Amino acid sequence: MLYLPLLVALFALVFAAFLIQKIQRSSPGSGKMIAIANFIKEGAISYLKRQFKTAGLVAIFLFLILWLLLGIKTGLGFLVGAFFSGLTGFIGMMISTKTNVRVAEAAKNGLGAALKLSFQGGSVTGFLVVGLGLLAVTGFYLITGDLKSLIALGFGASLISVFARLGGGIYTKAADVGADLVGKIEKGIPEDDPRNPAVIADLVGDNVGDCAGMAADLFETYVVTLVASMILGSLIFPGQLIAITLPLYLGAVAILASILGSFFVKLGKKANIMGALYKGVFGSAILAGLGFLWIIKNAAPALNFSFLQLYAPTLMGLFVAGGMFLITDYYTSKKYKPVQSIANASQTGHATNIITGLAVGMRSTAWPILVIALGILVSFWSAGLYGIAIAAMSMLSLAGIIVAIDSYGPITDNAGGIAEMSGMEEGVRKVTDALDSVGNTTKAVTKGYAIASAGLAALVLFTSYTQELSALGAGLSFRLDNPKLLVGLLIGGLLPYLFASYAMSAVGKAAAAVVDEVRCQFREIKGLMEGTAKPEYGKCVDIVTKSAIKEMILPAIIPVAAPILVGFVLGAEALGGLLIGSIVTGIFVAISMTSGGAAWDNAKKYIEDGNLGGKGSPAHQAAVTGDTVGDPYKDTAGPAINPMIKVLNIVALLIVAFLV
Amino acid sequence: MLYLPLLVALFALVFAAFLIQKIQRSSPGSGKMIAIANFIKEGAISYLKRQFKTAGLVAIFLFLILWLLLGIKTGLGFLVGAFFSGLTGFIGMMISTKTNVRVAEAAKNGLGAALKLSFQGGSVTGFLVVGLGLLAVTGFYLITGDLKSLIALGFGASLISVFARLGGGIYTKAADVGADLVGKIEKGIPEDDPRNPAVIADLVGDNVGDCAGMAADLFETYVVTLVASMILGSLIFPGQLIAITLPLYLGAVAILASILGSFFVKLGKKANIMGALYKGVFGSAILAGLGFLWIIKNAAPALNFSFLQLYAPTLMGLFVAGGMFLITDYYTSKKYKPVQSIANASQTGHATNIITGLAVGMRSTAWPILVIALGILVSFWSAGLYGIAIAAMSMLSLAGIIVAIDSYGPITDNAGGIAEMSGMEEGVRKVTDALDSVGNTTKAVTKGYAIASAGLAALVLFTSYTQELSALGAGLSFRLDNPKLLVGLLIGGLLPYLFASYAMSAVGKAAAAVVDEVRCQFREIKGLMEGTAKPEYGKCVDIVTKSAIKEMILPAIIPVAAPILVGFVLGAEALGGLLIGSIVTGIFVAISMTSGGAAWDNAKKYIEDGNLGGKGSPAHQAAVTGDTVGDPYKDTAGPAINPMIKVLNIVALLIVAFLV
Repeated sequence: MLYLPLLVALFALVFAAFLIQKIQRSSPGSGKMIAIANFIKEGAISYLKRQFKTAGLVAIFLFLILWLLLGIKTGLGFLVGAFFSGLTGFIGMMISTKTNVRVAEAAKNGLGAALKLSFQGGSVTGFLVVGLGLLAVTGFYLITGDLKSLIALGFGASLISVFARLGGGIYTKAADVGADLVGKIEKGIPEDDPRNPAVIADLVGDNVGDCAGMAADLFETYVVTLVASMILGSLIFPGQLIAITLPLYLGAVAILASILGSFFVKLGKKANIMGALYKGVFGSAILAGLGFLWIIKNAAPALNFSFLQLYAPTLMGLFVAGGMFLITDYYTSKKYKPVQSIANASQTGHATNIITGLAVGMRSTAWPILVIALGILVSFWSAGLYGIAIAAMSMLSLAGIIVAIDSYGPITDNAGGIAEMSGMEEGVRKVTDALDSVGNTTKAVTKGYAIASAGLAALVLFTSYTQELSALGAGLSFRLDNPKLLVGLLIGGLLPYLFASYAMSAVGKAAAAVVDEVRCQFREIKGLMEGTAKPEYGKCVDIVTKSAIKEMILPAIIPVAAPILVGFVLGAEALGGLLIGSIVTGIFVAISMTSGGAAWDNAKKYIEDGNLGGKGSPAHQAAVTGDTVGDPYKDTAGPAINPMIKVLNIVALLIVAFLV
Repeated sequence: MLYLPLLVALFALVFAAFLIQKIQRSSPGSGKMIAIANFIKEGAISYLKRQFKTAGLVAIFLFLILWLLLGIKTGLGFLVGAFFSGLTGFIGMMISTKTNVRVAEAAKNGLGAALKLSFQGGSVTGFLVVGLGLLAVTGFYLITGDLKSLIALGFGASLISVFARLGGGIYTKAADVGADLVGKIEKGIPEDDPRNPAVIADLVGDNVGDCAGMAADLFETYVVTLVASMILGSLIFPGQLIAITLPLYLGAVAILASILGSFFVKLGKKANIMGALYKGVFGSAILAGLGFLWIIKNAAPALNFSFLQLYAPTLMGLFVAGGMFLITDYYTSKKYKPVQSIANASQTGHATNIITGLAVGMRSTAWPILVIALGILVSFWSAGLYGIAIAAMSMLSLAGIIVAIDSYGPITDNAGGIAEMSGMEEGVRKVTDALDSVGNTTKAVTKGYAIASAGLAALVLFTSYTQELSALGAGLSFRLDNPKLLVGLLIGGLLPYLFASYAMSAVGKAAAAVVDEVRCQFREIKGLMEGTAKPEYGKCVDIVTKSAIKEMILPAIIPVAAPILVGFVLGAEALGGLLIGSIVTGIFVAISMTSGGAAWDNAKKYIEDGNLGGKGSPAHQAAVTGDTVGDPYKDTAGPAINPMIKVLNIVALLIVAFLV
């Protein structure tokens, strides 16, 4: 009966393999380019190896605990989730390091060729995320038939993803900030200049953070949403198999829609890159919406819903996804007032740039919250709590195409770096810059999408938690005027703050180490500034690798330890409060950081386009400060909150039986 | 029966009048000093007049609505609250503008004399806050005997306080940021230099923001906590008068304790200013704790509590107050790691200063939340929901002495400015600088206290809201898995973000107007920089006045409109969620802003003390940026969140009968 999801999952993987082959047939360019690309690849692989070693140790420890306490199936589920999450990140990153140099070469033939190739690279990661996600969940469920161990599978995926988001995020931003602070600001040399000792580490960072970290994160959100909706289905409609399997079917149909939709991505006559990518996303959404018609028509009667009652939530899911896209675009694109207000404020100095950027980040949370709220209410009015789960799954079902347009970004970013470092002609850099600039917006937009979907997924997990408790016959009061629950809410609200604070400090510390090293190399390597001597790239790569691994551990422990502590010390009611508290503040912290950070970035780009004095003006200097502050906001702390709030909720679901 | 609170309230006012007389007998110094002080006083009065005009119009409009919908008693309650709140701010500010110049003069006689006088000035405001607060609530309750209209009294107080905090906060920071950006950074002239056209506006700002705004805020928190505890008492113990009047007795005893405690403020042999002030606070707390013994012993049996059950919450209130003091001190004082880490990060530039400051701000929320959580839990375990109200009241009962050590800060800040502008000898400035530096920490510490108590007060209000609903027989589900409530939580969570964002933007806009004016004066007034011509101070005062009034309106509408909209569109459950959501994110936003802002400020001072390169070094420049960013954080957006979350909760209580 679950042939469709299984076959579609395999088909997505075959499609990804087919794309890989196509990419590999494209020319990797000159020997110099290949050498640089290899440098980047080696750095990225060596970092991921270390990250997996650390995360693996934690995973094995948790596997043993889960095995002992909850049985071997749960333990294995955890391992499968962790393995696939890591695998998605790893393959996605490998493809990115293969594609980057080829995109630089293809850029010689113009924008169209470069866009096509880089989007193919991104699509590989996108279809890996959904293909492996659907395969893991469907396969594991078919084999074990056990929903409890699926929770553990989600836990494994989320945990690895916290490590990947944090470690990768710290890596990429420490290298970026470190390279910029000395290179751009102190020495006045351009971005990606080969004289900068941290430039390779910076390019490696794009791959381990924006590629591997992001892929693991979206994989995790996808898997957890599937699992949470299936469990909620089983609790609300006991004995109704279709309530459990419906999310898998929705996922399968949306994958087919996304594969078809990916063919819509083509540069039109106006050479509007963003438009080309949006065609793919909105095309996929429409196709998915049509496909859902058929699925829901068959499923609704069995669950005693009218067709519309069950179809409306799927539309709400797509509506929230589309809404997040447009809203984030508004707050982070150079074309609109928010970014321009930051650019204008840069004219009165660093401080006003920061004040305005912080204000824009905070304000950018308003519409997303209202859109999410509307999605929740309509879905609930249509189909009850299950409706919210269906909306979440519908939203997440587009992950394939959305990851594709996201991970195309770091590929073009790298392509630009390779072009700069290997001294390719001006025209190439122009093409990659155009692609990269759009990549900044797609990255921001995807993050908005990821956070909104993470919020919905976490709500579904929380609902499963309370349903599970009442199924266990615990007479608990989740009333808001229960002081234990209020205390839980406050403690839960604290976690994203604490987590984000540690993540930011980690970037600060690691970046300071890079700054010291880069300053030292500029001081001690004679002829470096003149271009007659070469910097020691490897040293910077090494420093960032070590600090990122070291600094990711403490914050990663928070979401595992907090629910256990609160659950056993203060009880299940306080734990329920904690889960919701973390979602409430988490969404705000994450959106304000990712949108604010991207707005700072593009305010700088807006000035670099020649506005308000252009490059080198005092306004530009202030804008560079804002961009640097935005870096750990948007690429480390903000996005890492997604997997964090899900780990919290999953751990709660895992321990729920012990709390009664 | 309520003679004690009434007499004590009057006694506090008499004591304040006695202090005013003492201050007035002290010498106001030279003619030049008096002229400058008059300039400041006039600016402050003219600003407050306009603020009251705008706020008054809104108040009259709301008075009419309340009268029409809820009767004349409610309408009058609202007016009384609004009037007293404004009065407290106004007198406090007048005293401050009287004392500042006298402190500058007294500083000639050394630290001890200056501290004594400035603390006397602060004490006037402190005892006004609690005296007028207790008088208004006790008097109004005695006359009308109606608890419902007391809610309106709280509403009036809170509303005026939102205007005062916002308007004053925008004023003070726009003037400060504007003066610094051109004066300190572009022109390289010192703080408070008479050549700076914005210097008078800056000094006026200290009075209208830190003095009038803060006094109105604490008055509001005090009144609202009293009212909320009385109402909760009446709902939980129907027919038991002592449950209603107990908060008044606690307030009365604590005022006596604070008046006694204020005599402990004396400089010891080590001339430790902070130590002298702390002696006053902790002395008052101990005396209050002793006084509570007697009150609780008489009250407990009537409410069927054991002595300890009812006494423990009063101790928890004092514990939370003390905890907030020590924690905020740790995060904002130059002596400890957090501030020093920001100073160290300044060495690598503006951006790392900001990143570290943001991280410190976020982290500074952790311990306060845990302390508050413990306070809530222990109080609830001891005496149920009423216990939480008693704890909140106990905490707030110290407001007199705490406002005293807070508003001593702007007095010394002003004294320093007057000394600088009138060219007094170096030694005077040294004394006022020493006092002012401590004032920065006491200001931060008081804000931490104000926010924690605002959070507790809001929780008590929320509890009254749910109790009132169940007393009205509405069968509502405040369960956390009710989607309406979840949506309410999210929307409520949004409000502090939106509110803070508008407040920050307002400062940005108003500051930009000041910058333009100051730049223009430096350009067009010949001889200004050389000191041969005088700037037009009045123009800057005028610009800031107008923009502050204009910019405060939009954010002030949020807390009045949001609960009405959500309550009537989505219902009482969603509104309940909104109230808690606003408390949860509000506490974090407020604490991270006020502590973070103070930490930035003191990191700059730490460098100015000669560390890490001292004044004028690149680290110092970066630290000035951080300080400037921290300004609207700690003095506008952060503290204005206190009255905002209370207005939300009070409006909800006012409309509750219409929601059923």
